[in-house]
Amino acid sequence: MNVQRRDSRRVEQPLYDGTGVLGLEEYFADSTRLASSVLRYHFEPGASEGLHRHDAAAPDSCTPDDSDELYLVVSGELVMTIDGERLTLTAGDAAYAPARTWHGIANESDAPAEMVLIFGPPQYA
Amino acid sequence: MNVQRRDSRRVEQPLYDGTGVLGLEEYFADSTRLASSVLRYHFEPGASEGLHRHDAAAPDSCTPDDSDELYLVVSGELVMTIDGERLTLTAGDAAYAPARTWHGIANESDAPAEMVLIFGPPQYA
Repeated sequence: MNVQRRDSRRVEQPLYDGTGVLGLEEYFADSTRLASSVLRYHFEPGASEGLHRHDAAAPDSCTPDDSDELYLVVSGELVMTIDGERLTLTAGDAAYAPARTWHGIANESDAPAEMVLIFGPPQYA
Repeated sequence: MNVQRRDSRRVEQPLYDGTGVLGLEEYFADSTRLASSVLRYHFEPGASEGLHRHDAAAPDSCTPDDSDELYLVVSGELVMTIDGERLTLTAGDAAYAPARTWHGIANESDAPAEMVLIFGPPQYA
């Protein structure tokens, strides 16, 4: 199967003690051979993903492994926080959260917003 | 640098003998540690990426290596052809082109369209 239609695999859930629920859709979760995972995130106004980090060495890591994450906004406006820096992103803007870095993202606007997340294990030099 | 603004790294070029020029923007090309590459493609009406394949064993391969590709439409409408199958995709729909498969994509609509491409070497079982 070479196609996945919008919202056919979508789930609604809160994430990392954020506010409200997010619409999360992973693409080709059962069939991809890419080393990175790809998800679309839908944020209603006020919704957020809480601050978290992917750090194999930290007891408070949200995942057992290190993971780098690339956030690409595709509609609306989202505010990303990476390592204390606050970035306002609109369609076509992207942010990169290296493994072990605290980060989170919120829709502080009055309209829905969406982003694509690409994440996976970092290739350390 | 954790942010890349829309169009700051965009280039305009034809692709694989397609029609017209595409706007191509790769994200964090110089700094990513992900095993997959991430690009945004902008198609004006009538623009297309020609049919091609990523097949290390084929003399007519467009790249020296195998590569799997995930195409995720983020605005407008695009028509993807994979291995002879024709798929009309709108925002939130995705298509997966495994390595060695002939594929291409075209904007046959009257409005601009954009997609995100995530590609990299397949993890063969």
